[in-house]
Amino acid sequence: MVKYAFDNLLGKFVFDNNFHILPSSALVRDAQPVPEKHLQRVLNHFRDQRYFSDFHRKNIVLSRKQMQGSVDDDTLILQAINALDEVDKVINMLSKRLREWFAWHCPELPRSIDDDIKLAEIINTVPKDQILKKLRIAESMGATLRDRDLEPIERLAREIQSLDAVAESQKAYIKALMEKRCPNITALTGPYLGAKMLEQAGSLKRLANFPSSTVQLLGAEKALFRHLKTGAKSPRYGLLHEHPLIAKNRQHLHGKIARALADKIAIAAKVDHFKGAFIGNKLRSALEKRFGGSL
Amino acid sequence: MVKYAFDNLLGKFVFDNNFHILPSSALVRDAQPVPEKHLQRVLNHFRDQRYFSDFHRKNIVLSRKQMQGSVDDDTLILQAINALDEVDKVINMLSKRLREWFAWHCPELPRSIDDDIKLAEIINTVPKDQILKKLRIAESMGATLRDRDLEPIERLAREIQSLDAVAESQKAYIKALMEKRCPNITALTGPYLGAKMLEQAGSLKRLANFPSSTVQLLGAEKALFRHLKTGAKSPRYGLLHEHPLIAKNRQHLHGKIARALADKIAIAAKVDHFKGAFIGNKLRSALEKRFGGSL
Repeated sequence: MVKYAFDNLLGKFVFDNNFHILPSSALVRDAQPVPEKHLQRVLNHFRDQRYFSDFHRKNIVLSRKQMQGSVDDDTLILQAINALDEVDKVINMLSKRLREWFAWHCPELPRSIDDDIKLAEIINTVPKDQILKKLRIAESMGATLRDRDLEPIERLAREIQSLDAVAESQKAYIKALMEKRCPNITALTGPYLGAKMLEQAGSLKRLANFPSSTVQLLGAEKALFRHLKTGAKSPRYGLLHEHPLIAKNRQHLHGKIARALADKIAIAAKVDHFKGAFIGNKLRSALEKRFGGSL
Repeated sequence: MVKYAFDNLLGKFVFDNNFHILPSSALVRDAQPVPEKHLQRVLNHFRDQRYFSDFHRKNIVLSRKQMQGSVDDDTLILQAINALDEVDKVINMLSKRLREWFAWHCPELPRSIDDDIKLAEIINTVPKDQILKKLRIAESMGATLRDRDLEPIERLAREIQSLDAVAESQKAYIKALMEKRCPNITALTGPYLGAKMLEQAGSLKRLANFPSSTVQLLGAEKALFRHLKTGAKSPRYGLLHEHPLIAKNRQHLHGKIARALADKIAIAAKVDHFKGAFIGNKLRSALEKRFGGSL
């Protein structure tokens, strides 16, 4: 009698040559794999309701393992860079309010301090008469608010300082993750721009699979499709516009630099993904040599 | 000889009948006001450059006084209610991120807690195994993050708690200001909705000048102009949709309630602006009698 062995999620099963199931204790050493033309008969067997709850349970165990395994550093970098972006937006939004609100008390200060965090710090620690003294202004155009009315303004300023501390700790966290996960990319772009590119790509694996032309235009998707659809000017770079090498060079060089940068980043991403040796410094100094300055 | 007296920002001036200026010591008792037909000659006199710096200085003093006097409780209420609105938005935005981020660690918690502040508190204080125990879940679908990776998530949760404390203190401040400045409106709408109406109107004076139909549609300007322009359905209320009396009554009553509410608020605004006696309770109980329940 031919015996067939069949494995699935629930374990090892043995069938006789009529495809009836045998007790699991049946010797399986001499069992053959199920021939393909009979596979359907074996599978039909498992349509039986009595297996359903077992399948369900095992499936959940498997899914859970896959879910748990899917949280890698890429996921954490993505979450952290998005959080940083949002905290920055929040600081900006609350600082606008702080400027407007405090200006009723002393319009001279918000006008002369551009940095939001510095402004919050001064509002929190320096009394009005000393602010005016430092700015060499004899008398303020603002009304002198009562302490009761200043209190909520100072509270907002303290919160902005606290949000800034959160942003700083997020930056340190992203830097640590990026230097471990993508040392080569980080050497070229710094941790935040690198993390944003990773976020746009979705994962390091996807970023490593991109040709350099795609890397160059990451974050410029809207402009790219406008170009393809309406024939508008093609974009020269997306996220890369933040890169210091582009910011500090003349406009007519921007396209050329973006191309060269994207080339090197595409290489770096592949090396990072396949855990190659660190060549970030070499890639960087090639760019520095060609376009001057240090990254 | 006729003498003319003329006052302006710089003081009292005396002119002779040829409109030459006389020393300020000249007797002004018998001086006449400048006839209108000669006013231009007198004014031309002050076009002289030597008066410019004096005018400038005096003008600044005057402007400063006006600026300082323009900061009233209305301004502070406006700033505070806008700030509260922004802090609420910020809490919402960061809480969305916290939910998504923490879900990689323990998706069961964000799914079962709707309240953002409560969620932040639990993330901050309860370890994962106790969370699962409370939710009666044997094993989490999430990966177990290292402390290093949990730290920034908990930091974000602490910041959300801190922002909530800021919102609470802003609410207390707005409540105190509103109860002092607009006790009658506040009795009808509560401090925050009242402050929002004040904000939409621009000041208590403007709100007091609005007819009740305008009060009814405050905050529904977009829908109103759409109605006027395209003949779309006219809005029944704007900000008032937040009012508990509308929220808890049936839809078909909403228009009627909004009208009655706006009537009373328009009266309350006039009483508050002209510092009349407190009739807020009377207005309120009339509404409560008509539509049931307590505000």
